[in-house]
Amino acid sequence: MRQNREVSGGELGRTLGISRTAVWKCINSLRAEGYQIESTPSKGYCLVGVPDRLLPGEIREGLKTSTLGCEIVYRSEVDSTQVLAKSMAMAGASAGTVVIGEKQTGGFGRLGRKWHSLPGSVSFSVILRPPVNPLDALKYPIIAGVAVAGAVEEVAGLKPQLKWPNDIILGGKKAGGIVTEMAAEIDRVSYLIIGIGVNVNTAKSQVPEDIKDIATSLKIQRGKEVSRVRLVQAILEELESLSDEFKITGFEPIRKQWEELSCTIGHQVYFARGDKTVEGEAVAMDSDGALVIRETNGNLDRVLYGDVNLKKSEGQAG
Amino acid sequence: MRQNREVSGGELGRTLGISRTAVWKCINSLRAEGYQIESTPSKGYCLVGVPDRLLPGEIREGLKTSTLGCEIVYRSEVDSTQVLAKSMAMAGASAGTVVIGEKQTGGFGRLGRKWHSLPGSVSFSVILRPPVNPLDALKYPIIAGVAVAGAVEEVAGLKPQLKWPNDIILGGKKAGGIVTEMAAEIDRVSYLIIGIGVNVNTAKSQVPEDIKDIATSLKIQRGKEVSRVRLVQAILEELESLSDEFKITGFEPIRKQWEELSCTIGHQVYFARGDKTVEGEAVAMDSDGALVIRETNGNLDRVLYGDVNLKKSEGQAG
Repeated sequence: MRQNREVSGGELGRTLGISRTAVWKCINSLRAEGYQIESTPSKGYCLVGVPDRLLPGEIREGLKTSTLGCEIVYRSEVDSTQVLAKSMAMAGASAGTVVIGEKQTGGFGRLGRKWHSLPGSVSFSVILRPPVNPLDALKYPIIAGVAVAGAVEEVAGLKPQLKWPNDIILGGKKAGGIVTEMAAEIDRVSYLIIGIGVNVNTAKSQVPEDIKDIATSLKIQRGKEVSRVRLVQAILEELESLSDEFKITGFEPIRKQWEELSCTIGHQVYFARGDKTVEGEAVAMDSDGALVIRETNGNLDRVLYGDVNLKKSEGQAG
Repeated sequence: MRQNREVSGGELGRTLGISRTAVWKCINSLRAEGYQIESTPSKGYCLVGVPDRLLPGEIREGLKTSTLGCEIVYRSEVDSTQVLAKSMAMAGASAGTVVIGEKQTGGFGRLGRKWHSLPGSVSFSVILRPPVNPLDALKYPIIAGVAVAGAVEEVAGLKPQLKWPNDIILGGKKAGGIVTEMAAEIDRVSYLIIGIGVNVNTAKSQVPEDIKDIATSLKIQRGKEVSRVRLVQAILEELESLSDEFKITGFEPIRKQWEELSCTIGHQVYFARGDKTVEGEAVAMDSDGALVIRETNGNLDRVLYGDVNLKKSEGQAG
């Protein structure tokens, strides 16, 4: 039953090999999920509206991946998709399993920081089981950042930047964040969980006062809404394609893409080393995925973890 | 109640602030755990034998650590102490928690390989939560190897060697193994689980036929039994002390100790790189904990993961 086309209960029943009463029950379940289905006695059923929800059936429809999204777990409300995905991965969930929370009440970002799941945003976690060692696993936050940036460009026509390591920046403000966790034996990774949050159709009025200066959404930047389902699909497609590329070609092409997308490279930054604050210019990402920073005295630093902030005069995204 | 000293039920009751009936009940519980306690009507109770079990009370008695062993979970039989420790760590168990399995039926070593828990061996897992990033976490297998080697020398008077990365070798055969797992956000480690298995009082006749050529025990090497409780204590003490040293002084002193204990350094080895086998001489451990191997053509390789085997002509432990 495609949108705006009328189909009789009898025809649906024959196609699905079920009775007209069973069809009627299915229609009612779909209506309960938010699908708007009109019924005209002589003509049959007509789908006139799809709910604005990230339902597994919607995500799967037209999804061009081979592994990611093979299993989609949907919760209308969840504390944290990341925590749920972790416990599922530990219990043996397949690589490619996606956990989606329509509403996320206890989301967190890197370093355990709170992540506000705003109205109109998407929050989901992906389980990967790449055959890599923990050192190569450290490149997945970079891979995920490049994937989300590519998907945002494809679906919303916007040109996001990446702030080290993988904040999604639009108009100098944060529109999305990524947290990556792993479980590993020292010799090999057991699973990676990539948690992704993007503010998609959040209106300006829905951004809380205390983060108004630093947070934005695709809708605010673009001036109109974006299909959340299509964005999730595009992120899964980009993530699968880049992960495959990483396995086959290595890190170099992704490293280059990150540098091109970066709003950190070429700018004055500061970061903490022990109790001290170190300042310098971010000059490159190296082959390990570390940010290379040149101090004013010429010293080169490599930062593989933690925060690197843009100096305020250089932009708002620091 | 120390061994071989008689104490009356009345005295015990006064010391503990409980009734003589309660004392009697305690005595019976201890007897049920395997403690041999004689009672003489006029003199009282006398402890004449302690069970050969790794009971938490025995491990704690005289244990010189501040964190490791703060919590000891004991199972008379367990599938895998590592799996149990992992689920406890995920549920929030404290750093220093030790999980001991008197009998382990599904033990595993590095790369998921089966670990035979032989009669008279010790098998336990330690939960650590060091404030380090995943890159530094990769040094913990080396730290653990040096700790176990030190404890074996202290308690059994033997001089074990370490085969890359952390097999405990005595007389050219394997007497113990270590597996290290971690859960981490990319920026920081959430927990490390170090699983340790050592063949302690295993008799020659108790080593299965198929591993007779490659496995040994402290008892076989020493010719007499070793206190399993004391060995576990010494391992926890060494592990805590080396972890503290690593946090304060860094990796260098531990790296040097590993090199001195190693039966890999200075020998011809081979390892797999993709589909190829690479041969060379193991020449050093570098500051990241990687094994440095010089190929015959002079090329230097760094191995941070996986197996490095001794060439057979060089010893039996390959």
